[in-house]
Amino acid sequence: MNVYADNAATTKTSKTAIAAMLPYFDEIYGNPSSLHTAGQRAAEALEKARETIAGILNCTPREITFTSGGSEADNQAIVSAAKIGERKGKKHIISTAFEHHAVLHTLKALQKQGFDIELLPVGDKGFVTAQQVADAITDKTCLVSVMFANNEIGTIQPIAEIGKICREKGVLFHTDAVQAAGHLHIDVQQQNIDMLSLSAHKFHGAKGAGVLYARKGIALTNIIEGGAQERGKRAGTENLPAIVAMAAALKEADDDLTKNSSYVSAMRDRLIEGLEKIPHSILNGTKENRLPGNVSFCFEGIEGESLLLLLDSKGISASSGSACTSGSLDPSHVLLSIGRPHEVAHGSLRLSLSSYNTPEQIEYILEEVPPIVSYLREMSPLWLDKISGKKEFFIK
Amino acid sequence: MNVYADNAATTKTSKTAIAAMLPYFDEIYGNPSSLHTAGQRAAEALEKARETIAGILNCTPREITFTSGGSEADNQAIVSAAKIGERKGKKHIISTAFEHHAVLHTLKALQKQGFDIELLPVGDKGFVTAQQVADAITDKTCLVSVMFANNEIGTIQPIAEIGKICREKGVLFHTDAVQAAGHLHIDVQQQNIDMLSLSAHKFHGAKGAGVLYARKGIALTNIIEGGAQERGKRAGTENLPAIVAMAAALKEADDDLTKNSSYVSAMRDRLIEGLEKIPHSILNGTKENRLPGNVSFCFEGIEGESLLLLLDSKGISASSGSACTSGSLDPSHVLLSIGRPHEVAHGSLRLSLSSYNTPEQIEYILEEVPPIVSYLREMSPLWLDKISGKKEFFIK
Repeated sequence: MNVYADNAATTKTSKTAIAAMLPYFDEIYGNPSSLHTAGQRAAEALEKARETIAGILNCTPREITFTSGGSEADNQAIVSAAKIGERKGKKHIISTAFEHHAVLHTLKALQKQGFDIELLPVGDKGFVTAQQVADAITDKTCLVSVMFANNEIGTIQPIAEIGKICREKGVLFHTDAVQAAGHLHIDVQQQNIDMLSLSAHKFHGAKGAGVLYARKGIALTNIIEGGAQERGKRAGTENLPAIVAMAAALKEADDDLTKNSSYVSAMRDRLIEGLEKIPHSILNGTKENRLPGNVSFCFEGIEGESLLLLLDSKGISASSGSACTSGSLDPSHVLLSIGRPHEVAHGSLRLSLSSYNTPEQIEYILEEVPPIVSYLREMSPLWLDKISGKKEFFIK
Repeated sequence: MNVYADNAATTKTSKTAIAAMLPYFDEIYGNPSSLHTAGQRAAEALEKARETIAGILNCTPREITFTSGGSEADNQAIVSAAKIGERKGKKHIISTAFEHHAVLHTLKALQKQGFDIELLPVGDKGFVTAQQVADAITDKTCLVSVMFANNEIGTIQPIAEIGKICREKGVLFHTDAVQAAGHLHIDVQQQNIDMLSLSAHKFHGAKGAGVLYARKGIALTNIIEGGAQERGKRAGTENLPAIVAMAAALKEADDDLTKNSSYVSAMRDRLIEGLEKIPHSILNGTKENRLPGNVSFCFEGIEGESLLLLLDSKGISASSGSACTSGSLDPSHVLLSIGRPHEVAHGSLRLSLSSYNTPEQIEYILEEVPPIVSYLREMSPLWLDKISGKKEFFIK
């Protein structure tokens, strides 16, 4: 059986999204900036996509800037807020220890430019609180950036509350909603969000398109200089096929949000229930306030990479953490941030589900994982030391 | 008859490119950074695309960085060279007056950071010479950036000679080859190019993919921070469908280069020959060293925009200049750079052809343009003043 359980890394483009984008390759292929009918038809499609997405996020179309993806949107949001802050002499930025690298590395670059970057701890469950944010804000704070839901452990942050605090204190609030968009209800008004990033290929859109929502009045700084596309804020011919696909996929996801959420989270809960039975396993994050599709465990005494390869040999595509950092030998900064020791963090497994998965696939995963974990532990000298009592278990 | 003659703005995605990319939406849709088979199949396709493109440009695959398009590649090339220069205390950059805005606006941003930007004049024919570059280089010069061929007037610059001078003087040489790639022979070794930008959708690839070639040893600066994609130099999940389509389209263009070049340039020459007969018209650029598909004229006494709209009503999609600046009321900086007076620059028409055009379409354009030009001149009080002798003609 083939089971794709790495939907947090990327998803299959939906039939709806593919059908929506196809005419834009060789029928309506004009440049949206061109004055002729071929261009204007493209421009209309671009604006229609913008309206669709704005409607779903509850903002105005002018507040939507199309980017090449979530990373670019994160970069632009943070750099823009930093520039706004700098002009006012405010160079303190608050974020969290377990953000995606698109946020963390952008903050690191700003730190080199003299910004004061404060990363809030997320506790052993993987949450920040609005109170933590409130306590951290000073009169020098120009930005709070907290992800909507974590990409590795699936914990959903109290976005509306954090946004409310930021609004009260007059500080810009950005959220990296790459894992949330299309999976959770987002309303930038209700949730007091000033800036938000999303990525199409995480909700069955195509790769190559993302959105930066920025509330009216927030001056964006260009990451890419050049032509006057996107009101002069993002140069380069718009990737219209992928943008149209993104709008179609987000609409599809939004229409089916409740249905998919309950379908997918039931599979998630069944998976968690089954994997918890493996001795010396620990669920990362909590059962509540968790992305519908996210399952994340640490299994003591094994190497996550070996687990992935053996699962792959059984047709199961999974991940140890973020795809963006795979290949790195360092343990996940997310798992370290919730207090997992290095050794335990190395034994991580992320299974991320979508509405394309089936209950049969879940049962198949549950059949395959436990014997592989046992097998890997049998192969591990470290593990044998531990169970012989020579070492303490990290996970009790 | 419908005639798409705005191929410099964007092109129809070829059937070959579409067929190449389709499996990557919902069959081989894994994230190339993922360790599982689904991801590794995607990674293999990514590396195969990189090898194809490297082979055509005559560089190594490791020297290819995939970007979201030509603008991003231009930005990254220039910012990277500037950072390298800055570390050595060299902050002088040489470019030309008629570069694309992706280059000019990036240079402008660097100027604000204290860089000394020198834009070489391009003469009334639209060329820079290697001698001009040689004369401009100082011991503070860190970069020369000269476009391979101009996007509005089609003039092909002496790239190999400029590259040779730069190589001799130890200065990095970047060329924006967005209009050249797929249309002209490019060989980064022979032509002494250190950095080169190209954009897939200008040669029948899909929108959303570009290439930055950077010679081994040139340290790239990230424009987008985050994940470790593209050897850590360009964060964000790779737009695999568009990258695969780009490689397929570039290969197709390269295989057919001689054939298409002769087919398209014959149509170009016929078009130039016909349009030259219109009184008070002037060809922008020269007949030699011209992009195979580029035709650019100024017609005195008319507004280019009105001409475009009337041509559009006849089914002909054309442009006054760059799509990236349309909507702007300013005359084209390219036409001003070759000495066209403001008023004349406003009466410009760019017809950009591809191998998808036919000789019948060219004859149709030649039937339609002259009466429209006459009609517009009859409507123009300015023009009536001129032909009544009250004013001098700008174009003799």
